[in-house]
Amino acid sequence: MAISDIVDSYNHYVKKIMDFNESIALAEWDMRTGAPKKGIKQRSEVVGTLSDEVFKRSTSKEMKGYIDALTDTSVQDQLSLITKKMIEISKKMYDQYVTIPPEENKAYVILQSEAQSVWQEAKAKSDFELLRPYLEKIVAFKRNFIDYWGVKTNKYDALLDQYEPGLTAETIDHVFGKLRKGLIPLVESVTSSHAQPDRSFLSIPFPVEKQKELCLNLLKEIGYDFEAGRLDETEHPFEITLNPGDVRVTTNYQELDFISTVLGTIHEGGHALYEQHISRELVGTPLCEGTSMGIHESQSLFFENFIGRSKSFWTCHYDKLKHYANGQFDDVALDDFYRAINVSHPSFIRTLADELTYPLHIMVRYDIEKALFNGDLQVKDLPGVWNEKMNEYLGITPANDREGVLQDIHWPGGDFGYFPSYALGYVYAAQFRQTMTKDIPDFDEHVRSGNLKIVTNWLSKHIHQFGSLKKPLELLKDTTGEGPNPDYLLNYLSEKYSDIYRL
Amino acid sequence: MAISDIVDSYNHYVKKIMDFNESIALAEWDMRTGAPKKGIKQRSEVVGTLSDEVFKRSTSKEMKGYIDALTDTSVQDQLSLITKKMIEISKKMYDQYVTIPPEENKAYVILQSEAQSVWQEAKAKSDFELLRPYLEKIVAFKRNFIDYWGVKTNKYDALLDQYEPGLTAETIDHVFGKLRKGLIPLVESVTSSHAQPDRSFLSIPFPVEKQKELCLNLLKEIGYDFEAGRLDETEHPFEITLNPGDVRVTTNYQELDFISTVLGTIHEGGHALYEQHISRELVGTPLCEGTSMGIHESQSLFFENFIGRSKSFWTCHYDKLKHYANGQFDDVALDDFYRAINVSHPSFIRTLADELTYPLHIMVRYDIEKALFNGDLQVKDLPGVWNEKMNEYLGITPANDREGVLQDIHWPGGDFGYFPSYALGYVYAAQFRQTMTKDIPDFDEHVRSGNLKIVTNWLSKHIHQFGSLKKPLELLKDTTGEGPNPDYLLNYLSEKYSDIYRL
Repeated sequence: MAISDIVDSYNHYVKKIMDFNESIALAEWDMRTGAPKKGIKQRSEVVGTLSDEVFKRSTSKEMKGYIDALTDTSVQDQLSLITKKMIEISKKMYDQYVTIPPEENKAYVILQSEAQSVWQEAKAKSDFELLRPYLEKIVAFKRNFIDYWGVKTNKYDALLDQYEPGLTAETIDHVFGKLRKGLIPLVESVTSSHAQPDRSFLSIPFPVEKQKELCLNLLKEIGYDFEAGRLDETEHPFEITLNPGDVRVTTNYQELDFISTVLGTIHEGGHALYEQHISRELVGTPLCEGTSMGIHESQSLFFENFIGRSKSFWTCHYDKLKHYANGQFDDVALDDFYRAINVSHPSFIRTLADELTYPLHIMVRYDIEKALFNGDLQVKDLPGVWNEKMNEYLGITPANDREGVLQDIHWPGGDFGYFPSYALGYVYAAQFRQTMTKDIPDFDEHVRSGNLKIVTNWLSKHIHQFGSLKKPLELLKDTTGEGPNPDYLLNYLSEKYSDIYRL
Repeated sequence: MAISDIVDSYNHYVKKIMDFNESIALAEWDMRTGAPKKGIKQRSEVVGTLSDEVFKRSTSKEMKGYIDALTDTSVQDQLSLITKKMIEISKKMYDQYVTIPPEENKAYVILQSEAQSVWQEAKAKSDFELLRPYLEKIVAFKRNFIDYWGVKTNKYDALLDQYEPGLTAETIDHVFGKLRKGLIPLVESVTSSHAQPDRSFLSIPFPVEKQKELCLNLLKEIGYDFEAGRLDETEHPFEITLNPGDVRVTTNYQELDFISTVLGTIHEGGHALYEQHISRELVGTPLCEGTSMGIHESQSLFFENFIGRSKSFWTCHYDKLKHYANGQFDDVALDDFYRAINVSHPSFIRTLADELTYPLHIMVRYDIEKALFNGDLQVKDLPGVWNEKMNEYLGITPANDREGVLQDIHWPGGDFGYFPSYALGYVYAAQFRQTMTKDIPDFDEHVRSGNLKIVTNWLSKHIHQFGSLKKPLELLKDTTGEGPNPDYLLNYLSEKYSDIYRL
């Protein structure tokens, strides 16, 4: 068969897998936005059937045939870049899946699901011991998987690679180390500053209907295309991609904390812009999604923090906010509003942390994960180590495990290696911002005058359009000329918080 | 292999097909309720992929193996009733699909989809000639399909059987003949009556938000379970089943015609009750849906007409209506309201017809379909025949084809044989009502006092729970002791309209 025929046949085969994935995504969106509860059990079985199908096809003999044919060195010069990148992803998935014995994978999936419901109970009761045996088993499974993949040293790197391909603990140690060194004293100065901003007016009730209008408006302002998406309400905000023409976001309206709603919406909007702008050439291929968790987070954090928490942005939109708020901000000066939405102090819960302390929360988790897989940390010792690290990095100690080691679903869900991407994304975002302000010297002026199109276009041109055609480090290098470098984030935070807290 | 193992394996195989069907249903619901338009093209491909999968599995060698093994006479006494009925449906689908050459089926599917978009244009321009060549091809395809199925005489019966298994043109001729004989003079008397009710107050604006609350409330009153469903808004109301725990309805709020909204919502609610009450034993099998279009329609019409247009129902709920209407019905007596919502007069558009004239619209279509497939009527003659029949049955002649032969999507969609089930459903509904009022002599009193539970329970016990375990005629016979009999519908209409129009 001619290579072009094999490629056609492979494309067709992969397109079907992507169609199944879109079905799964729709089922998930639906379950999270309002599917009636009595249908959920059967719906989960539907998701199971579709996932099985994706798994079977990704690990089939047919897939192996395509991989063998299209990774053969003799045919490489006949393949397009897209085909080469597609087959790379197909091969990675194939290798990861087929090396794990199916029964073992099945047992792991069941364990994961049980662990997540035990976690809810353990968290409610603030009782780590309930979860401990499950976590121990999950860690054991993960260790076995890493063995199956043939990884001998730095086993944690194999987990990192699933979320942030190419990133290693060695690199992260360097990045996080430098970042921590700058952050800890900055947090201490902020905490002990005498110029603590007043944020009481942020808790005045803000009618949900008005928040909704404001959020719709701001999403449009940042360039979110409502003909290729929709905004719904859920308890936990998220972005989900069906296809680049259908990228949905959700938010959670909070009457007494509208600013969290607004910033959360902009955050999800940042994720969505990435997916809406992926080149249509990539539709139907596994390249048609953000290239990594970290790069994805860099886009959401760019909009949430560098736009949504900036004075320039609110210089343009504060009057609008006042309009929707119906008078409650009429006596609040823009500068006071800006300082209020940037209040920072050490706290226990990662998801509620401010932009300054957030990376330290991630480092606590990173240290623990690394020690679990590269070192000899035992699961039973997690609560103690957690509390020590919190004290070391943030100067506070959780009173119980609910506010400590039990707060996140990631570990009971088996997602070891995921956390670092949150902070890496933030580091990347600051690097992108640095390069962007070089390319667009009057960046702030554009934001102040509401011309966010120039920002979105820049991100789209340098990042979004490529989907997964470029690996995260490649994308970073091509765009900024560097590898991960925390200096720009440190500079940004230092400058901003010195101003806000009059340091 | 032991028979029980074959049955297990068959159940498992069929369950996967049903899971794919649920995915397709969800994609359709989503596309009709608010999927962003830029994602629709790709979403249609997802539906195509899933439908292919259903088709492949329903006509696979594996399926043939199950059918052969489980229809073997020697094993019948080892099979449960459910398995026997399942295999009957699998066999019917298999036989229908495999006899048609795949290329021919594919060409037909494409033609269907083209014809439906041409139909929209033809309807807008009121130009039958645009659609004619497409309809001619569709009819030719259908005739070929019937040949493939080996049907020699009464070819139209093969089409009827797809929507109303077991029903033949012979039976329908008899039922519709008798019904028409009673209806035509009744419609004439109503039309020429001097006691025409006033319905002007029904067009006073009724705020959409209040309609929404009213509809939610009335759906609950008829027993719709919101933990197993949801109500959304679409241009054309519909009911769609994901699984019996997730049966969704939609409605179209019309500020100037709230009563259509209310009755349309109750109609879809009637469909939904049927699906919500199907025995959970049948989940994951092809028996887990209404047994035919006609029986389905009997449930929706039962609630729309016998409940929603009854004086008893509004005796209980008129105060509630007044409450939501904010005063506009305060001076309208219940009896005047009741007469207003039952105004009848001949009209051109089926979907807007009242309950008295509706069956005559169906008969126009039935006569034409039958003559196309059993007789020698040509597609080119449709507009003329349509207008003649309308004049013969309803005494009016459409001024153009948009109001005539082009009004419905069914024929361009290839759905010949579907229309009769609307009127048959109405006939069945009246038969069920007759039997129910024998079982529950104080039926009206229950409706008047808001105890619809007794009605829903009766329908559930005699009809809903069985899903497709019983064929329509079997269900009718078991429940009412008769075959299709239009006398009860005629009696109901005659009595009701004699009262309303003072005949």
